[in-house]
Amino acid sequence: MFKAKVNANVLRECIESITAIVDEGKLRIAEDGLKLRAVDPANVAMVSFELQGDAFDEFRFAVAEEVKSETEAGTESKAETEIGIDFVKLLGILGIGGREEVELELDEHAQKLFTRMGSLAYTISLLDPSSLRKEPKVPELEFPVQVIIETEEFRRTIRAAEKIGDHIVLGVDGEVFYMEAEGEMDKLRLGLRKEQLIHLTPGTLHSLYSLDYISAMSKGMSHAENITLNLGKDYPLLIEFEVAEGKGKVSYLLAPRIESE
Amino acid sequence: MFKAKVNANVLRECIESITAIVDEGKLRIAEDGLKLRAVDPANVAMVSFELQGDAFDEFRFAVAEEVKSETEAGTESKAETEIGIDFVKLLGILGIGGREEVELELDEHAQKLFTRMGSLAYTISLLDPSSLRKEPKVPELEFPVQVIIETEEFRRTIRAAEKIGDHIVLGVDGEVFYMEAEGEMDKLRLGLRKEQLIHLTPGTLHSLYSLDYISAMSKGMSHAENITLNLGKDYPLLIEFEVAEGKGKVSYLLAPRIESE
Amino acid sequence: MFKAKVNANVLRECIESITAIVDEGKLRIAEDGLKLRAVDPANVAMVSFELQGDAFDEFRFAVAEEVKSETEAGTESKAETEIGIDFVKLLGILGIGGREEVELELDEHAQKLFTRMGSLAYTISLLDPSSLRKEPKVPELEFPVQVIIETEEFRRTIRAAEKIGDHIVLGVDGEVFYMEAEGEMDKLRLGLRKEQLIHLTPGTLHSLYSLDYISAMSKGMSHAENITLNLGKDYPLLIEFEVAEGKGKVSYLLAPRIESE
Repeated sequence: MFKAKVNANVLRECIESITAIVDEGKLRIAEDGLKLRAVDPANVAMVSFELQGDAFDEFRFAVAEEVKSETEAGTESKAETEIGIDFVKLLGILGIGGREEVELELDEHAQKLFTRMGSLAYTISLLDPSSLRKEPKVPELEFPVQVIIETEEFRRTIRAAEKIGDHIVLGVDGEVFYMEAEGEMDKLRLGLRKEQLIHLTPGTLHSLYSLDYISAMSKGMSHAENITLNLGKDYPLLIEFEVAEGKGKVSYLLAPRIESE
Repeated sequence: MFKAKVNANVLRECIESITAIVDEGKLRIAEDGLKLRAVDPANVAMVSFELQGDAFDEFRFAVAEEVKSETEAGTESKAETEIGIDFVKLLGILGIGGREEVELELDEHAQKLFTRMGSLAYTISLLDPSSLRKEPKVPELEFPVQVIIETEEFRRTIRAAEKIGDHIVLGVDGEVFYMEAEGEMDKLRLGLRKEQLIHLTPGTLHSLYSLDYISAMSKGMSHAENITLNLGKDYPLLIEFEVAEGKGKVSYLLAPRIESE
Repeated sequence: MFKAKVNANVLRECIESITAIVDEGKLRIAEDGLKLRAVDPANVAMVSFELQGDAFDEFRFAVAEEVKSETEAGTESKAETEIGIDFVKLLGILGIGGREEVELELDEHAQKLFTRMGSLAYTISLLDPSSLRKEPKVPELEFPVQVIIETEEFRRTIRAAEKIGDHIVLGVDGEVFYMEAEGEMDKLRLGLRKEQLIHLTPGTLHSLYSLDYISAMSKGMSHAENITLNLGKDYPLLIEFEVAEGKGKVSYLLAPRIESE
């Protein structure tokens, strides 16, 4: 049994952070909230998403009796339900709204999710979780450098870089964080000194990433005020930010590109 | 002789209610105002339009002498003039405006309509009325149920339904008016109780309609605050609303679809 | 050496006035400001552009020593540098901004233009001036009639004319300035009496122009409050207006079309 009420904007913000990476995925519902982890079809980017139950105006969850007894008979695994959702479709439906509050209700037997916004009710068929990709493992990574930057500064630079080329370098040079894109004839560079950032671990390293993925991610983070960039030398990029006024956490992990020169 | 002055927004609102169904049509001009009745090219929807002379800031009409005497010699038919207008083109021209007032003047001999907005003057060639479809007869219909609903509520539901499927059910179940669209996997339902509506005749009936036509109609009614839906069981839909601050009336008649199941 | 700081909006306004006619061109930089003169690829329209140094918040220019001595050895030609710029690309970059001030710096040896907006830096490769078209000569012309008109009135009429046909007549009939476009079935006419204009030389003459060019020009002049139209009988059109709060001047010269009737 899952029943919840949530502010439409909060729900939209959360789903947009997921659809930046995947169209559909397995959402795990437990007593303390929602969780999702998924990789994009090309295995280049991963999104991890967590939303606490208290981000909702109302949040009620209980494992069905038959499932519970099975679980209890087995290991001590935490009680939770897994549902397959087409997030792009759900986002389209929320886009109609303008309504203040969304009610969600799961019909596990019929595999349907009821969505109510005012007098408008949607019934969405769930996706079969076994037809969806397995939840990825999070690789063990250590990041020597951490940069906290205003989201808008980051996003504007990404938009500018899109006019220049297909890749972007993120790096730290002493006490300066920089982003660089190079085209055939033109070059773009954002350079921010430590005092222009919220936080910077000084260092000397950089990595190259595909701009397509970072562009998609920059749309998913648009409601967050700040983002944390975790960087290494020719290393994956981990971007972390909060959603739902701090009651949710999203992280994006992106594989680096090998520099051809 | 036809000469008139009218607020540009009022004229735009009126023409938009017509272009929701037809691109061009025969406008009948008489001493007491304007009238039009036309069916769409597929014979599925009909628009009836009436605008009183006092919706205009100035409205002068007189039948040409030669026509008058012919008419008097014949039956007692009311004096009026019929002109063929490309309403889509006229709407495009009004779109430029931003001007407060539009002056219209008919040159019946040259078959031209002069349109003046400030210092800008347009001369539009009229269409030959004999090249346009005959004005349709209004079928005799009796509607057991009448629902009056806020236009925005209706329009938002139509926009949501467009994301789901091609058809929509409009019905009444006891004291609830409902709209339902069903896709392959998803379902949408708006349910409004009597107290959420401006008026409802209780009953139990519903009909299915093509969403394409209702979508077009919902654009044509966008300036009206409320609309009246006249419903029956597997029966045509009659939508009525006012334009020009109550000095004009528009009605749309739409044939039902046969439910395949 | 060329280094300058300028308000981003002023720079955008200037470049938009140039890209109305050409995508790229030779910009001449001298101690007293910037100059450009270029014709469109079809040789139908010419743009002349001048921006005073004091339109900039900071403007520093000096001819490189080696160039200077060459120049001094030769004739008394004024010291200036010529660079080839892709204005469309520069405009795209400025579009990202939202930043208050743009810093420009020329690296003549590397043939690069550095552009800085806040912490964002662009390096644009310059175009080889010898690959660009030669600067056109301004023909000697005398215009019997001059009309000064509000830019918005002119632009709105051009937008309306685009719905009607491909050409437009600009003319003066006594104390009335008029613009006329004729399509197969429709006709548009703007007529403004002397008292509705800022200035009018009375006369009787008109010329026909291609609407495509005038439409493009009308975009380039969108920031100017008034424009001056210099007219003759079947004669080129010279449009003049100010940019950068009077510290810059733009003029467009357009060849007339021969009336086929």
